[in-house]
Amino acid sequence: MKENKEFVKEVTDIEEDFAKWYTDIVLKADLADYTDTKGCIAIKPYGYAIWENIQKYLDEKIKEVGVKNVYFPVLIPESLLQKEKDHVEGFAPEVAWVTQGGQEELEEKLCIRPTSETIFSNLYAKWLKSWRDLPLKYNQWCNVLRWEKETRPFLRSREFLWQEGHTLHETEKEAKEFTIKILNIYQDLIENLLAIPVLKGEKTEKEKFAGADNTFTVETLMHDGRALQSGTSHYFGQNFTKAFDIKFQNREGKEEYPYQTSWGVTTRLIGAVIMAHGDNRGLKLPPKVAPIQVVIVPIAMHKEGVEDKAKEIYEVLNKNFRTELDLRDNYSTGYKFNDWELRGVPVRIELGPRDIENGVCVVVRRDTLEKTTVKLDELQEKVEELLDDIQKNMYNECVKRAEERTTVAKNMDEFEKNINENQGYVKAMWCGKEECENKIKEITGAHSRCIPFEQEKISDHCICCGEKAEKMVVWGRQY
Amino acid sequence: MKENKEFVKEVTDIEEDFAKWYTDIVLKADLADYTDTKGCIAIKPYGYAIWENIQKYLDEKIKEVGVKNVYFPVLIPESLLQKEKDHVEGFAPEVAWVTQGGQEELEEKLCIRPTSETIFSNLYAKWLKSWRDLPLKYNQWCNVLRWEKETRPFLRSREFLWQEGHTLHETEKEAKEFTIKILNIYQDLIENLLAIPVLKGEKTEKEKFAGADNTFTVETLMHDGRALQSGTSHYFGQNFTKAFDIKFQNREGKEEYPYQTSWGVTTRLIGAVIMAHGDNRGLKLPPKVAPIQVVIVPIAMHKEGVEDKAKEIYEVLNKNFRTELDLRDNYSTGYKFNDWELRGVPVRIELGPRDIENGVCVVVRRDTLEKTTVKLDELQEKVEELLDDIQKNMYNECVKRAEERTTVAKNMDEFEKNINENQGYVKAMWCGKEECENKIKEITGAHSRCIPFEQEKISDHCICCGEKAEKMVVWGRQY
Repeated sequence: MKENKEFVKEVTDIEEDFAKWYTDIVLKADLADYTDTKGCIAIKPYGYAIWENIQKYLDEKIKEVGVKNVYFPVLIPESLLQKEKDHVEGFAPEVAWVTQGGQEELEEKLCIRPTSETIFSNLYAKWLKSWRDLPLKYNQWCNVLRWEKETRPFLRSREFLWQEGHTLHETEKEAKEFTIKILNIYQDLIENLLAIPVLKGEKTEKEKFAGADNTFTVETLMHDGRALQSGTSHYFGQNFTKAFDIKFQNREGKEEYPYQTSWGVTTRLIGAVIMAHGDNRGLKLPPKVAPIQVVIVPIAMHKEGVEDKAKEIYEVLNKNFRTELDLRDNYSTGYKFNDWELRGVPVRIELGPRDIENGVCVVVRRDTLEKTTVKLDELQEKVEELLDDIQKNMYNECVKRAEERTTVAKNMDEFEKNINENQGYVKAMWCGKEECENKIKEITGAHSRCIPFEQEKISDHCICCGEKAEKMVVWGRQY
Repeated sequence: MKENKEFVKEVTDIEEDFAKWYTDIVLKADLADYTDTKGCIAIKPYGYAIWENIQKYLDEKIKEVGVKNVYFPVLIPESLLQKEKDHVEGFAPEVAWVTQGGQEELEEKLCIRPTSETIFSNLYAKWLKSWRDLPLKYNQWCNVLRWEKETRPFLRSREFLWQEGHTLHETEKEAKEFTIKILNIYQDLIENLLAIPVLKGEKTEKEKFAGADNTFTVETLMHDGRALQSGTSHYFGQNFTKAFDIKFQNREGKEEYPYQTSWGVTTRLIGAVIMAHGDNRGLKLPPKVAPIQVVIVPIAMHKEGVEDKAKEIYEVLNKNFRTELDLRDNYSTGYKFNDWELRGVPVRIELGPRDIENGVCVVVRRDTLEKTTVKLDELQEKVEELLDDIQKNMYNECVKRAEERTTVAKNMDEFEKNINENQGYVKAMWCGKEECENKIKEITGAHSRCIPFEQEKISDHCICCGEKAEKMVVWGRQY
């Protein structure tokens, strides 16, 4: 049998070549594969099931705050894309253009949405009448396309999946508050479902979304100390509502432009899960988002009673946990253990003939690899406890890493030293000028991650130019 | 207030101009709207919620038969599309082409998927190794695009949403059986969730999917007696597996081409719901798929206690039914009644001050418009009963229509007379030649719907050429 040849799937050492380790995991844990469409991946069932769990969780949360799902066209006429000056400058260079439909050359070319502010704004202008229609809170789950030059599975793919919310509000205050409300929902999603702590704050002018007044972000830190922008929420003020002539009759009967937001998270979050939690044995999935939470691997499966007992346990556990029973007869037990570790299943149950005799099984947790012998009649409660504990432990491990990898820099030398030795987040004061931001990036390779909501005063002076500092910024090299 | 001007939304008479009635309902019941992307609609929250209910129901059913969700690229290189001869002939004339990505002209143009057999087959060839990997059953929920000349919201839109399943099997028998298993799932979806009876059968050579050996279909009949192809399941044999060189090592250790299927239903089903059930008051939604199952309209809302009581009832009902409480203060009660009827909500509860005094409310069912006075403490059970009864009644009404509108024709004169007087399904014998099929279409405007699984022998001769008849075919004018 072909499969027996590759007894253990080789994974690159995580400390040696993190980028290669990442690609190994994506491919070998069967999350996704490359395709003949350059820069685009195929998300396989195991990867897609993670996305489905993210969708289910987030969809419920955004519906709770009054958001409704819709679906708008994937193709945007060039003239619409051009209506908001900053937006078109930001996105036009990286869109794919449809120039031919069926047999006809199109009179006006259409782009595949890189994001949908323009098409939402165009329709909002048609629909919005009165303050009674506000707030207007729509979202869509869809594919978008950006013509990236360098691509990596999940992290930066030409096509990716996301949700994009687009809202209109009567007042600036309400719109800004909603932007933050969504940011907090993203924080909850990433911290509670994906077990990754976030850094929350505002993007600098340079890093904000094309067309936005403010971009708020949740940033996460990966295993190698690089940062990943993991979700953003934008406040547009009246930029698009004026450009698209979106007006409403206010409570005083006068016409007014509403205030707008948009916000999104993408399949990049799957990349975050891989890179925040994984280790040399492979993927490590937080129980809450894991497609398979518990796997049962019978040992000496051919021995009488083993398969039956395994099935019996499966039936019981599968009622409460997403459970898999590994009855493959063309793989050794050792191969199976490795395989499920590679695929990051949080809890593995090993069950052999002697275990059955003794009314026990061996339970192995993926995060610490700790083994415990558990009585079969206590298995359910034990699994529940364990999943809960693994979720917490994985989160805590990431908190610890973020703490260890966060440093303070008072001058450029310290900054360089910190980032070179430690990667991670570097806190440093900044004057607010893009010039300094660019220079810091040039010297250190670190982008500004955000101006954290929780500010600290490290010194009075910009780390770069030495002039009066406005803000404490967190910096980091990024994906 | 602007809104008060349009006291009742005008809807075209359904018997007078069904096409215009249909468009009125789509727009005025707030299901979708036209966009500046020609031939593409924006699906609004109320329309999208119907799709979400369809998705939820169907997704569970296909997962029960072992199907797993994935996501594959939206862009397909031209060379891939061309690999299967019949397929490219069928689809190439109606695809949209991306010729420019970012700033660069593409060396090879990419089409936006009109369907994904080619890209699935290409990856299956890479992944499939052994009979142990079979059956391989993947599905994706996604958007597709076909450059239609004539478009109508939901029914025929350039872009639409659908699910497309693609499976591989060891044997012809297994693949064929799976094609029918899926067809039966579609039947269950359409009959039990959407309350529309289906006609099941096989498409003729002429009407089958480009590249398939057999196409199986579920057909439905609309209010005006026209037919709608509502879901299809294709058996490909080895057409694609040979064209794409998809092979597996069989149980005897030899290389073999597997057998393939694909199958899909689309947002067209929303059009089916509108056209199968609607009437002159508007949309009529089967309770199981209705985004709002019960609406509570308080009467004399300003009177003390009315709003509170309405809220109290809302809280109770909303636990078990998708319930809406209409507290809008800028619409008259009459307007609200019309509005909820237009939007097809199955059950309306009217609650006024005197009702509250008497411990009752008035319950109106949308399907028959029948009003009943119900004791408040029996309301929950009554609503449950009613929703159940409405679902059944709506289904039965459609069964009745299909029966009334199904006729038998023994010669072309009868055929013409029947279809002109009655529209609907016409049963007639056919020799199997495409020539006759074409001629029948030319004369009567009716396409072959399908060769029903349940055959009847009407006569021995083809209705068109008089030669020996092979099959009884059901014909009908179509959407």
